[in-house]
Amino acid sequence: MSEILATQIKWHEGHVTRTERSQLLRQQGCTLWFTGLSGSGKSTLAVALEQVLIRNGHAAYVLDGDNIRFGLNSAPKTLLESRGYSEASAKRFGLGFSAEDREENIRRIGEVAKLFADAGLIAITSFISPYRKDRDAARRIHEQNKSGPIPFVEIYVNTPIEVCEQRDPKGLYKQARDAVAQGKGMGFTGVDDPYEPPLNPELTIDCSSRSTQELVLEIVRYLEHRQLLAAP
Amino acid sequence: MSEILATQIKWHEGHVTRTERSQLLRQQGCTLWFTGLSGSGKSTLAVALEQVLIRNGHAAYVLDGDNIRFGLNSAPKTLLESRGYSEASAKRFGLGFSAEDREENIRRIGEVAKLFADAGLIAITSFISPYRKDRDAARRIHEQNKSGPIPFVEIYVNTPIEVCEQRDPKGLYKQARDAVAQGKGMGFTGVDDPYEPPLNPELTIDCSSRSTQELVLEIVRYLEHRQLLAAP
Repeated sequence: MSEILATQIKWHEGHVTRTERSQLLRQQGCTLWFTGLSGSGKSTLAVALEQVLIRNGHAAYVLDGDNIRFGLNSAPKTLLESRGYSEASAKRFGLGFSAEDREENIRRIGEVAKLFADAGLIAITSFISPYRKDRDAARRIHEQNKSGPIPFVEIYVNTPIEVCEQRDPKGLYKQARDAVAQGKGMGFTGVDDPYEPPLNPELTIDCSSRSTQELVLEIVRYLEHRQLLAAP
Repeated sequence: MSEILATQIKWHEGHVTRTERSQLLRQQGCTLWFTGLSGSGKSTLAVALEQVLIRNGHAAYVLDGDNIRFGLNSAPKTLLESRGYSEASAKRFGLGFSAEDREENIRRIGEVAKLFADAGLIAITSFISPYRKDRDAARRIHEQNKSGPIPFVEIYVNTPIEVCEQRDPKGLYKQARDAVAQGKGMGFTGVDDPYEPPLNPELTIDCSSRSTQELVLEIVRYLEHRQLLAAP
């Protein structure tokens, strides 16, 4: 028989506290918010950090384009074709890349990261998130969390655009430069849409000069220093 | 020095697997989807179950109206007044209680529950979720998860409407009956909006005849039987 079934089940009014969750997972729930240009190395770093944390016993989870833009924040087309939405609903709720769609995209991600962190996990987000106002709103969601403020760590991946553009793994910069040359805008961050660097990020990192291992180590050191990797 | 910093940080290409997450948390990530009328006892049960799971070493998290309807799925008014949205954006992205807003509400909750379960947690959702089509869509999101199907357990809280209406902790049934009597619709589930009972729920529960403790025990037994509370 399992431990739960062997015990008398007793239950008290009220929610589980954040402290109880932290003690169970032996860490502080928090959000690590990576921001930077396309090709800056955000995702490589986020995935490497997640792996190191998990293999050392810490519950962490990466939210990125793969699991958000094809799920929670699907494009209108996906809602229409795969979710059976009406055209009006798909157009209304689906997200593209206009300024207001990006704002809503980042708002939803901020809300979900907050829920993960509230559950005790280390939420790692990896999105360009180019607008300062939207990132600040995500931070505020964490600060104003109902059951108490949640640590929000903004990590600015400050790789020079020349390096990002040289890597260009998906050929997006080239596509954007071509579009601009032909007089058509693409709204691509760093080319024809602004990237607003963080003013006071908790960490600034340049992926062009150091190895992933070194950078992950630096972030882990910071988390240790903030006492986020231990029970309260 | 921490264990992580003492170890040589090594990192391999590729994402962490679901199996690794399950081994870390000693459980299978899954979603327990409570559905039933207002006042049926969903939330009491969800919160009690979460508490019992956590106090027995299992990472679980309740998604309910409190943390979803005031966050991820805010009303237009909240987006306008607290998030600084334009009137057009607030109206477009904010959610009310029309059929299409309810559909989008449940879709987003299904997506977020899936992310929690994919991260290895036991996600517990507590929403009326009255439409069969919307619940089935949430199930499908879990079945079609990219890194492999995720267990989805639909728990039908089948408390008779007479009992729900007698409890009526927030006076909502009375309000809805009065509105209908005055010829004004409120779209309230069970009064002037339909509740479509699940056809094949994994569990059916009647909160009117048994104690919360007994019902939590029954759900835990089911989770044990499905081997969801152990490492793979």
